[in-house]
Amino acid sequence: MVPSLVKLDWIRRVADSGVDIVQVGSFVRGDKVPQMADTDDLFRTLAGESHRALLSALVLNDKGLERALAVGVPLICLGVSASETHSRKNTGMGTDDAQRRIIALALEARQAGRRVQVSVQSAFGCGFEGAIAEDRVRAMVEAYLAAGLTAISLADTAGHAFPAQMQRLVAQVLTLEPAAEVTAHIHDTYGLGMANVYAAMEAGATAIETSFGGLGGCPFTKVAAGNVATEDLVHGLQRAGQRTDINLATLVSVAQDVATHFGRELPGRVQRAGGIKA
Amino acid sequence: MVPSLVKLDWIRRVADSGVDIVQVGSFVRGDKVPQMADTDDLFRTLAGESHRALLSALVLNDKGLERALAVGVPLICLGVSASETHSRKNTGMGTDDAQRRIIALALEARQAGRRVQVSVQSAFGCGFEGAIAEDRVRAMVEAYLAAGLTAISLADTAGHAFPAQMQRLVAQVLTLEPAAEVTAHIHDTYGLGMANVYAAMEAGATAIETSFGGLGGCPFTKVAAGNVATEDLVHGLQRAGQRTDINLATLVSVAQDVATHFGRELPGRVQRAGGIKA
Repeated sequence: MVPSLVKLDWIRRVADSGVDIVQVGSFVRGDKVPQMADTDDLFRTLAGESHRALLSALVLNDKGLERALAVGVPLICLGVSASETHSRKNTGMGTDDAQRRIIALALEARQAGRRVQVSVQSAFGCGFEGAIAEDRVRAMVEAYLAAGLTAISLADTAGHAFPAQMQRLVAQVLTLEPAAEVTAHIHDTYGLGMANVYAAMEAGATAIETSFGGLGGCPFTKVAAGNVATEDLVHGLQRAGQRTDINLATLVSVAQDVATHFGRELPGRVQRAGGIKA
Repeated sequence: MVPSLVKLDWIRRVADSGVDIVQVGSFVRGDKVPQMADTDDLFRTLAGESHRALLSALVLNDKGLERALAVGVPLICLGVSASETHSRKNTGMGTDDAQRRIIALALEARQAGRRVQVSVQSAFGCGFEGAIAEDRVRAMVEAYLAAGLTAISLADTAGHAFPAQMQRLVAQVLTLEPAAEVTAHIHDTYGLGMANVYAAMEAGATAIETSFGGLGGCPFTKVAAGNVATEDLVHGLQRAGQRTDINLATLVSVAQDVATHFGRELPGRVQRAGGIKA
């Protein structure tokens, strides 16, 4: 459990570091996931403040959307797993039914004036099912596009992606809709995380979802592992002269505070090694 | 200290796993680096056996070459740091003098019928000096090529490389000499290791130097960190249908044994998470 005040401190610092989007939490049932029980309160507090980053939250169902709209979440993220098994474990519904509901919620959020991102989770493989047919991912992307939803995240929830596959699936979205904004959500379960990040960027993804220190991992996957570390990616980009507007020192210090808070070593490299100074 | 018999067990298993080359050790002074004092003995033992992989060793000076030739090392690796400071710390000589000596030793090894690989260490940046001019790396590559040495390794000793730079420098060698065999030696100090591996392969590198479990790190760099883990790379390649001739299970079990031997967690992901079965 992370106390709300600690969360707020981390969120505020990251939200002013220069990164574009910060995901604050999920609207899930507080009795089932007590770690997220304060998401409404966090947004109520943050609504009175001004930060550089767009704040987002994950919404899973109609109750969650209601709460997100009530507390003024600017960017609402919704998703469906491409894996039948993973979808049923997460939502009790198969992929098709789940996507119909998610699309309806996304349109409702947009109607309410919110920015919306929709995702295909487990798009690159699933710990339960193994390989996921690329045609299935394509059909789900087409369903989103047909509904006018063009901010699409391809999520490698289980960390199964490899670079050529990442490149192919990201490019496919942009072939279907050149104006789509493609996000890649990348976990580092098997060591390919950062290679997948660069493959996604090369193929035209304009946002990469990472986590500070490399924290995280979906508890409903088979092998939980965190995302690529935000500060490692920013450090890498800045080595190439990109995104020098982001304050790397802030990201590193937050990741170090997170490691201290949890009393364990996080996978992120830069927060351990320190960045390259020259 | 790893007992020789344990080393032999690891080497034999990796050397029959299907990987192309296994580096057995370095010919350094046993009184200064006791961990490598058994390199001659290891080769004497291995010389009487037959393994699928080519066995290599690192040679630093004339005394080392003499020992390597005496015990029949099939592939002799020699290198020079592109960083003046790193070169002086390693060899007591600046880069130019060190390269002249290394080229002379490489030619001597070739004359003796051995395969030779020459490297530019710290080619992508140095913990002491910071950035390394790409022109300097180019000049060193040209010196090797002028001597007829076309098996060239670009080593990111300090882990400073970023993908665009890796791609540029590997491509540069192949522009200078299309028949060169380029190896990339990659450390994962700042989280870019695997992204650099793929960048190197895309640019035409045909060999990637990794270490089991992600073990290692040059003690003479400022921030020591291991190479990319061999089994993580092989796992990633096999996801894409490449190098299915390599026995991944063998590599994973060796990495796990190494972790057990040292009693600590190694950075490699696949040996911790287990590979993807499907």
